[in-house]
Amino acid sequence: MPAWVRVGPGDDAAVLVPQRGALQVLTMDAVVDGVHFDRRFVPPAAIGHRALAVNLSDLAAMGAQPHSALLSLMLPPAIDVAEIDGILDGVLGLADRFGVALVGGNITSTPGPLTLDITALGSVRPRRILTRSGARPGDEVFVTGTLGDAAVALEALRTDAGDLPDAIRARYLTPEPRIRAGLILGRNRAATSCMDLSDGLADGLRQIAGASGVGMLVDAAAIPVGDAARRRLADQGEDALQTALTAGDDYELLFTVRPSGRRRLEALRRQVGDLPLTRIGIVTKERGLVVRDAAGTRELPAGFEHFR
Amino acid sequence: MPAWVRVGPGDDAAVLVPQRGALQVLTMDAVVDGVHFDRRFVPPAAIGHRALAVNLSDLAAMGAQPHSALLSLMLPPAIDVAEIDGILDGVLGLADRFGVALVGGNITSTPGPLTLDITALGSVRPRRILTRSGARPGDEVFVTGTLGDAAVALEALRTDAGDLPDAIRARYLTPEPRIRAGLILGRNRAATSCMDLSDGLADGLRQIAGASGVGMLVDAAAIPVGDAARRRLADQGEDALQTALTAGDDYELLFTVRPSGRRRLEALRRQVGDLPLTRIGIVTKERGLVVRDAAGTRELPAGFEHFR
Repeated sequence: MPAWVRVGPGDDAAVLVPQRGALQVLTMDAVVDGVHFDRRFVPPAAIGHRALAVNLSDLAAMGAQPHSALLSLMLPPAIDVAEIDGILDGVLGLADRFGVALVGGNITSTPGPLTLDITALGSVRPRRILTRSGARPGDEVFVTGTLGDAAVALEALRTDAGDLPDAIRARYLTPEPRIRAGLILGRNRAATSCMDLSDGLADGLRQIAGASGVGMLVDAAAIPVGDAARRRLADQGEDALQTALTAGDDYELLFTVRPSGRRRLEALRRQVGDLPLTRIGIVTKERGLVVRDAAGTRELPAGFEHFR
Repeated sequence: MPAWVRVGPGDDAAVLVPQRGALQVLTMDAVVDGVHFDRRFVPPAAIGHRALAVNLSDLAAMGAQPHSALLSLMLPPAIDVAEIDGILDGVLGLADRFGVALVGGNITSTPGPLTLDITALGSVRPRRILTRSGARPGDEVFVTGTLGDAAVALEALRTDAGDLPDAIRARYLTPEPRIRAGLILGRNRAATSCMDLSDGLADGLRQIAGASGVGMLVDAAAIPVGDAARRRLADQGEDALQTALTAGDDYELLFTVRPSGRRRLEALRRQVGDLPLTRIGIVTKERGLVVRDAAGTRELPAGFEHFR
């Protein structure tokens, strides 16, 4: 355990030395077998990875540096030790990569499904916090990475379609929390708002618009749909717009940038290397989410995200 | 929300201003229907109370002042809104009493049983932390309150025995975390070790002895068995010693006091008012747990706590 962990696992509670001058950032999110993953086709290490990644992604969206986590593990009857070890390997592997100390938690049996609940903690300097509520009319709307490939991978895993490249499969199995992008966005103050996309782009746009009291105009053609998702759309003739807006499990960041922040955004672009940053629209004074595609502009109806 | 909650529920994560000069204390514990409570006879508000109380009890055992909590609520199919409201009332009622702000968390469905997972956070000054590992030979062993009544109440609720006084019933339904006693123990530095009793006295003694590398000599007659438990023992001729040592769900504090701390203990006694503080034994250099009763002394076999 690092020196700032004064009391680690094994006592009634963990005791940490807080970072001087920083605020505490806290998030807690559970993943439940049969709801957020499926033990039949998600390997144990990927279950552990996912449980921590969804929480680190929330910290990334606040511009926070993660430092520790608590794990609550609810084990169903007859789960074997190898599966538990695999899950812990998945949690600890991702934790190590981001310098996150597992400082406590608990294990209990449950008559229900395998459930992992994680509380992740991070630090942020007061003026670097990213929230959902700071978007202003005229800001540009961006997303990191590409969208839709995780959903394609999930579908392939579910139906046991064997021909998917590992890199696409990994988009669902081992989502990458955008910690570095979140930290830089918070630090260089280019962003006026930020959140992570776990429930699809339409949901994210609506959340930021709602929290900020603004609207959004999105250019459908600009949405960075992933290669696998794009191919599947072409093959199956699905509604590309709907897929791009509603595919979940991506854990990319959605953020808005003030017009004067364009140079800072270019600096961010250089610092995040391979991670695409794509402008998909603009923040509007008029409430509501409007999407523009080849057929014209139309309002995204409330509840559209639930078509998923 | 209090001013030190910079970002509360509704964003990707909560942001708190840490208390200056204090360490962060964190604990996470889940309660699962069918394992830690039973929806058939535990009212919704008592379920919510219990979920928070078990966590506040862990903070009390560290000498910490609780300040906030995150709630993860896993809802089974067909649970009705009134039950959810009742559960939240139970959490919030106890939270209010101890000045705890509910700063975040999440709600998900589960195909399994109703589960509440709570992360509770508190503050403690560096020199006031109570751990399990500080007991030294010659220290006296104390417990707060009385033991066994919660187990009697649980048994009565389970078998629908209607004649139990409300005060006894409350020992199981609304356990009282010993926050004040823990804070004073940490502050006046009388205690060398402390933990909370959720899994029975035998388990607690073994945990402190193990963490501190010492043994314990306990006087069976001194164990403060509650009135209802004492009557039940008399009625049913059960093994009083075993019941006193293994009854769970009490959430009292077990702590050790150095010989020079006796005056500080008397000060504590005046400050906690009605709460009994009972000396039940002494810390020994020789490892092992030895119990002395009318029949003589005998070693508590390893695993005794699992007879429960």
